[in-house]
Amino acid sequence: MPSTTLSFSTRDEHRAWLASQAALPAGFRVGCTRFDFTPREAPKPARMTITLLALDQPTASFAALFTRNAFPGAPILVGRKRLVEPTLGAIVINNKISNVCAPGGVEASERLCAEVGRQLGLSPQQVLPSSTGVIGWTLPLEAMVAALPQAVGALGADSILPAAEGIVTTDLYPKIRRAAVGGGSIVGIAKGAGMIEPNLATMLVYLLTDIAVPRAELRPMLARAVDASFNAISIDSDTSTSDTVVALSSGRVPCTDWLAFERGLHQVCRDLAEDVVRNGEGVRHVIRVTVKNAASLGLARALGKAVVNGPLFKCAVAGNDPNVGRLIQAIGKHVGAHAPGTDLSRLSARLGGIEIFRGGVFQLDPAKETALVTHLRSAELYASKPSPDGVFTAPIDFPPHERSVDLEIDLGNGAAAAQVLGGDLTHEYVSENADYRS
Amino acid sequence: MPSTTLSFSTRDEHRAWLASQAALPAGFRVGCTRFDFTPREAPKPARMTITLLALDQPTASFAALFTRNAFPGAPILVGRKRLVEPTLGAIVINNKISNVCAPGGVEASERLCAEVGRQLGLSPQQVLPSSTGVIGWTLPLEAMVAALPQAVGALGADSILPAAEGIVTTDLYPKIRRAAVGGGSIVGIAKGAGMIEPNLATMLVYLLTDIAVPRAELRPMLARAVDASFNAISIDSDTSTSDTVVALSSGRVPCTDWLAFERGLHQVCRDLAEDVVRNGEGVRHVIRVTVKNAASLGLARALGKAVVNGPLFKCAVAGNDPNVGRLIQAIGKHVGAHAPGTDLSRLSARLGGIEIFRGGVFQLDPAKETALVTHLRSAELYASKPSPDGVFTAPIDFPPHERSVDLEIDLGNGAAAAQVLGGDLTHEYVSENADYRS
Repeated sequence: MPSTTLSFSTRDEHRAWLASQAALPAGFRVGCTRFDFTPREAPKPARMTITLLALDQPTASFAALFTRNAFPGAPILVGRKRLVEPTLGAIVINNKISNVCAPGGVEASERLCAEVGRQLGLSPQQVLPSSTGVIGWTLPLEAMVAALPQAVGALGADSILPAAEGIVTTDLYPKIRRAAVGGGSIVGIAKGAGMIEPNLATMLVYLLTDIAVPRAELRPMLARAVDASFNAISIDSDTSTSDTVVALSSGRVPCTDWLAFERGLHQVCRDLAEDVVRNGEGVRHVIRVTVKNAASLGLARALGKAVVNGPLFKCAVAGNDPNVGRLIQAIGKHVGAHAPGTDLSRLSARLGGIEIFRGGVFQLDPAKETALVTHLRSAELYASKPSPDGVFTAPIDFPPHERSVDLEIDLGNGAAAAQVLGGDLTHEYVSENADYRS
Repeated sequence: MPSTTLSFSTRDEHRAWLASQAALPAGFRVGCTRFDFTPREAPKPARMTITLLALDQPTASFAALFTRNAFPGAPILVGRKRLVEPTLGAIVINNKISNVCAPGGVEASERLCAEVGRQLGLSPQQVLPSSTGVIGWTLPLEAMVAALPQAVGALGADSILPAAEGIVTTDLYPKIRRAAVGGGSIVGIAKGAGMIEPNLATMLVYLLTDIAVPRAELRPMLARAVDASFNAISIDSDTSTSDTVVALSSGRVPCTDWLAFERGLHQVCRDLAEDVVRNGEGVRHVIRVTVKNAASLGLARALGKAVVNGPLFKCAVAGNDPNVGRLIQAIGKHVGAHAPGTDLSRLSARLGGIEIFRGGVFQLDPAKETALVTHLRSAELYASKPSPDGVFTAPIDFPPHERSVDLEIDLGNGAAAAQVLGGDLTHEYVSENADYRS
């Protein structure tokens, strides 16, 4: 569950709340710059933002998790090497082009790190690269190097908001979450919004803290927090080639309570993961599936994923149509294909707290149908309406509420439980992705 | 590959071709009736068609494959019992309600079989039931029984077209395929059009032949034909609770060449499977993925499925956007999650015959981009355009051509090959499914 129940009526209200969450922990600076360029492979004007996250002093206390996609981007290949370096001093992030399987991609990433290091007084190995955007295109390296001094000049210690805004692509709004821990804080930012079924981590998440947690503790803590948050969401079942979660500690504030730190880390990760889903491409309903009394955690998680990735159920939710037959179909599809021995005879299911299935039989009537529609409507983020030429775009660029379509699946068959978050499948998703690069 | 390269300019042209394919094999009759009713769970007027497929004499030579979804419909549970009966004399099929996990569902199916048997001079066990439509609702049994005499009265031995039209739900057009074998024929009909990633069989396929093939031969032949056809397609990755493929022989024509019969059976199944994809819900491009030189058939098939089920790649195809980065992402997603040891270093990929990837690096330039767009446009079935209120529906109810988006993935790493068919992800799919039941 999210740690907040926020609601916003306007973009300005939401931006003011983001600003209230954005104070950087001690020891960090961020800076951005934007520039126009023309991609080599498909010559049309494009705009890129370069974002720098810099430490005042290089730190040994850093952790990172990367995608398990078998075609990882060049920054992932470079980033994995950085994990064995003694210290890290900065992260350089670009959007628009993700530098995946592009000719000379690793060399371009390394060259960018070297240039950032030169300007910040770091070795190339103290700089971690991240890229997001179109897969297959090459980075405009010369233009990026030329733009770097502006990003360095913009470095400031006040707010993480410029970085939260700088890393986005199709996101409708920036995402910032924080937790106070002892005398310090953990502040995280995330970039969604499509190609999101993380396998180990999600697309570009940066967690900064001034709490002093040694590397040997920070790394397993981050792995546990990611497993319970970013690894339990799916927007479209597609696993990005660039998924990255990085945690950095400046070590400015002594850690007096490690358990409190790990709790804070989990909270920030869970809140950011939910933000990523709520602002997923085309998402008009967040779907929260709680699977309980399952024989194993793996089965609980897999059933939740099967439900939030079932396109027919997702379309029904988009239409505020409680077509719970498709929910049961999605569960049966997964069990039939991947866990055929599972006993489903005690399975019961609730939607919005209303029992819809028990003992192998649907529990439906016209009054329940009406109540289910009401639940779906109350979780809708905005009404769908096309432009005159048939293009669907979100009419808002802030999250109006934190409600969700709440599903509970009780297998009555064990002690494991999991919660998985996903979104509906909408005209806005198709409009966004039928010609994303144009 | 399909056995035909058909193209049609109008509905009438297509219907005339269907009629030319529709002659029933000797020994069969078909009849239909339609009636209006009100579903119990969500009271709104609805229309149901009941279709009868009857043999002049019950036959021992029948075969059937059913869905592996773990929540199978009541007709599947009844149908599995029919497999051990000595003979089968008729099939009764209804659309609109699929009778899955509904209270008293098995009893309703059995009662319908008994009533059909009474009117045709068969035992209840000689009648196989099939249902398709909304999951979770109960059959309007009294109305169905009252309508049966009309279907019996309509039984005729000329054409299978009334049955091909009677079994559809969201299909845009009926599907009939035939093969001549010796002095007889195999004629098949299929109902698509959504919830299609068959696991063993697809939604309602009936294959009728007058060639005398004993049950013991027919059953393994059908399993092999289904594996190479219906088990190699996916429209939306959702596995129906009602998938059924039935083959029936009236035995009127002696079989002189079993190999020719099996070839004919494969051809009819492959052609029908491709028809099901081409008329899949919202499909505007058929995607044909050929995977070759893979280490195993399982890997080849799974990679093909991963590509045709990747929503981002499917959306790009819908927009005639050759976003081949999403293709490589989909392959890497599958291998990273399910086959992490696979060597991808020799993978090459072609789209429309144009090389786009080799040796870990994209092979792209502006001229190729233009050629790839041309290939995608040539495979488009129709242009997409919404109604003034934003609803997308197909402007045609016939297949204008049999072209496809042709992908070739060469793993350079073994001897196995597979071909998988799928469709794009379109506004028409979302419009169809966001409020299917209303």
